[in-house]
Amino acid sequence: MNFHYPNGRRYTPSVNSAKKLTPEKKWTYSNRGMTLEEDINETNEFYLEHGIATIHKKPTPVQIVQVDYPKRSAAVIKEAYFKQASTTDYNGVYKGRYIDFEAKETQNMTSFPLKNFHEHQVKHMEKVLAQKGICFVLLRFSATEEVFLLEAHHLLSYWERMKNGGRKSITMEEIEENGHHIPLGFQPRIDYIKIIDYLYTLK
Amino acid sequence: MNFHYPNGRRYTPSVNSAKKLTPEKKWTYSNRGMTLEEDINETNEFYLEHGIATIHKKPTPVQIVQVDYPKRSAAVIKEAYFKQASTTDYNGVYKGRYIDFEAKETQNMTSFPLKNFHEHQVKHMEKVLAQKGICFVLLRFSATEEVFLLEAHHLLSYWERMKNGGRKSITMEEIEENGHHIPLGFQPRIDYIKIIDYLYTLK
Repeated sequence: MNFHYPNGRRYTPSVNSAKKLTPEKKWTYSNRGMTLEEDINETNEFYLEHGIATIHKKPTPVQIVQVDYPKRSAAVIKEAYFKQASTTDYNGVYKGRYIDFEAKETQNMTSFPLKNFHEHQVKHMEKVLAQKGICFVLLRFSATEEVFLLEAHHLLSYWERMKNGGRKSITMEEIEENGHHIPLGFQPRIDYIKIIDYLYTLK
Repeated sequence: MNFHYPNGRRYTPSVNSAKKLTPEKKWTYSNRGMTLEEDINETNEFYLEHGIATIHKKPTPVQIVQVDYPKRSAAVIKEAYFKQASTTDYNGVYKGRYIDFEAKETQNMTSFPLKNFHEHQVKHMEKVLAQKGICFVLLRFSATEEVFLLEAHHLLSYWERMKNGGRKSITMEEIEENGHHIPLGFQPRIDYIKIIDYLYTLK
């Protein structure tokens, strides 16, 4: 089975994602043009540089089929395919605790479609919770640029509801009730660790 | 700068790595022909299936340059390059604690060359320790198939010694003194969690 990546969108190589912040970029407050992934990467970089948390995005999983080895230059991958990830995209450590999350965006205004998540990611979240890891999703509504942190056990219950024939999305009311709004900041952009501090007592 | 991957060896696509254990394979005890990576992947699969720990290998980081989108079939990556990983290869969660490690093999008999590790990996280990994560390396001597777990703070001190002009490897005596021998098992093959249980009091 082929799959869409990510979320049915075409893959665009993020050539700039590894680039360091330019001074110009640093002084831009507005989020316009920044993807959720870029915001989170900047946030994680900020956490890393300031010794707040050590959290990274996992590389895109790729099935490599053919590699060329030109003389005196780097190996070139000539044929490869995107693979379905078997885990969530982000993980790391904060005050000794394991942190694991997935970040998703929707253009919807009133609810968050569950089709943004895959069965295997949900299973992974269950496995993380079983090991007492801290697991959540970051949900962004792109129209309003509002970001919410929703703990995995809530997502799992909405997922379960869907599997039992219920609605295929999480309503805005449910997200506002069970999730935690993260105001968009300057540095860090999406300060999710603040919510983790609020939810868990970590020393 | 180009870099060797992994450890200066050519990359061979591990087409079989995702395959489930065949019954035949299950009954093979000898390690001959199994790479360290395969042994660890099997071990992690065992931990996952038995609810012991949730630990995964990170995908190989790849810089994607060109992707084709043939009609009615999966996107094909036509040009990509291996990137230097910015972290270690394995991480996950065990009893709420963050686990992070790198696995390396040598053909040497009497010492383990530090060139197997990269500066950025060592920096990453420091960042993990700063966040109180559990961090270590698994070292295999391929000639004898002996595997040792060495906690990251020991590796960091040998790395420091090298940076200060000292020897470029860890002697066998040092590994035997500060590391922990992991006997090769049946299932799991490399039961490193047992050592973690011994070293840390986790509930």
